[in-house]
Amino acid sequence: MIKKIEKVALFGGTHGNELTGIYLIKKFLKNPHLLKRETLKVFPFLSNPKAIELSVRYTEIDLNRCFASEDIENLDNILYEQLLAKTIHQKLRDNQINFLVDIHSTTSAMGLTIILSDQNDFHLQLCSYLSLIYPELKVLYYVSNETNKLLRSNTELGLTIEVGAIPQGVLEAELFIKTEQLIYSLLDFLDKYNHNEIEKKSHNLVVYEVFERIDYPRDGEEVIAMIHPNLQSKDYQAINFGDPLFITFNGEIITYQGDSNVYPVFINEAAYYEKSIAMCLTRKREITVTFNPIQ
Amino acid sequence: MIKKIEKVALFGGTHGNELTGIYLIKKFLKNPHLLKRETLKVFPFLSNPKAIELSVRYTEIDLNRCFASEDIENLDNILYEQLLAKTIHQKLRDNQINFLVDIHSTTSAMGLTIILSDQNDFHLQLCSYLSLIYPELKVLYYVSNETNKLLRSNTELGLTIEVGAIPQGVLEAELFIKTEQLIYSLLDFLDKYNHNEIEKKSHNLVVYEVFERIDYPRDGEEVIAMIHPNLQSKDYQAINFGDPLFITFNGEIITYQGDSNVYPVFINEAAYYEKSIAMCLTRKREITVTFNPIQ
Repeated sequence: MIKKIEKVALFGGTHGNELTGIYLIKKFLKNPHLLKRETLKVFPFLSNPKAIELSVRYTEIDLNRCFASEDIENLDNILYEQLLAKTIHQKLRDNQINFLVDIHSTTSAMGLTIILSDQNDFHLQLCSYLSLIYPELKVLYYVSNETNKLLRSNTELGLTIEVGAIPQGVLEAELFIKTEQLIYSLLDFLDKYNHNEIEKKSHNLVVYEVFERIDYPRDGEEVIAMIHPNLQSKDYQAINFGDPLFITFNGEIITYQGDSNVYPVFINEAAYYEKSIAMCLTRKREITVTFNPIQ
Repeated sequence: MIKKIEKVALFGGTHGNELTGIYLIKKFLKNPHLLKRETLKVFPFLSNPKAIELSVRYTEIDLNRCFASEDIENLDNILYEQLLAKTIHQKLRDNQINFLVDIHSTTSAMGLTIILSDQNDFHLQLCSYLSLIYPELKVLYYVSNETNKLLRSNTELGLTIEVGAIPQGVLEAELFIKTEQLIYSLLDFLDKYNHNEIEKKSHNLVVYEVFERIDYPRDGEEVIAMIHPNLQSKDYQAINFGDPLFITFNGEIITYQGDSNVYPVFINEAAYYEKSIAMCLTRKREITVTFNPIQ
């Protein structure tokens, strides 16, 4: 049971080379009427203007790994993004934000994805509502030992939007337009929720749950293989025992040796080479979501 | 009439976030036998190790714009890449390199492209030979007021390989393998040429010639429109008067108002936002190439 959502923050440019969110926020800053909903106050923010200016993911440390409470409170954390995180955290508290949307893009072919780090009924109901409007929308449940470090973790409620495939530093019109529409529908839902106007019904929602991360084959730190061509751009498609995962620079094929019917995502994401992630493996789960009216 | 080609330099990592060339050169450095041809001495080089380490295009200035003679000679040019250019230039002279290949990748869907800045018979004959082996290969003739600043311009003979679509910071296996094969065939040609073994025949070669560069619509420096979805990833496909080029963030469509039957390339290349290039327009020309035997 969630009380009214009144203050919503939209963030773009948490990574300064992911242009979709950056240019959406710029559009919202110039056209605040687009975000107006009767019961909501919506705040658009550019998370990391310095990284945006330089068109880099970050200048000193990944901003989206700087929000753990102990890091926010640590007065010795003085890298640029660590300082920025403290300010953003304070801004969210001062404005009493209770729902946060962080807009990202990926070089992986993940289409229109919502990432949840919390499967409470409210989030699931929201995702159900959106997936009925956007049948292509995928819902990814992704919890790791880094979840508490994310910008998203600053509020109890909220989600990450992840769209791709889009190269870093590039605007892709089709996904830009779809992401914009998704945000409007999300705000519509919150407004309807506050008005107690969400229709009571149950819905079967598919959720992909990350359970493992796989690194590139390496020799020391050096990558020695690439995503196999059969797997490239095949996010959310099932792989089975024995399917090719990688091809080494010498042409040897490395196959998948785990359980069948798992669904890889974040396949060949540019920013994850340094994080030792070639892909994340998920299991597909169908959840029956029933609406819980406002308290 | 060209004399024997004896010393060949292969460069990858002229831009430090274009991984195809970087990992090909690393492979060649580890496996020099792959480059062995009877009449050739082949030198693989990583152009900008510092940018490669940081996975950025460049650290201070685009290395591939630092090779004009006046810049090489200018003792006040002390940015990192300007200094590096002087050293590379000297290395090419000391090793008496007479053929240079510079391997790049692009976020544009340009497939397997050879860029020529000189349409002499030797280059055309080489491209004919390669296009008979790789029918998908495109030949782009691209001369601008920056041509003399390119790494490529250090030798009389040579070419740039440009493959895509590949996001910056990403390895794409299919294009990696194709680029590798293309380089082996190129070395085969040079070796056959030195042996006077190139078959005498004429061939019709299609060359796309850049005649104009189009910037994004802007308000001051700020981009205000994206490549239209109909044009995205349509490199080397004809556009005609009235076809959509851009869509603004507000949904207005901007159409092409020039001559019909032009062929855009470098559509939505990430690195060209800062260079004010949304695409390059080319005309398609068919050239009959006849082999000129060694002098």
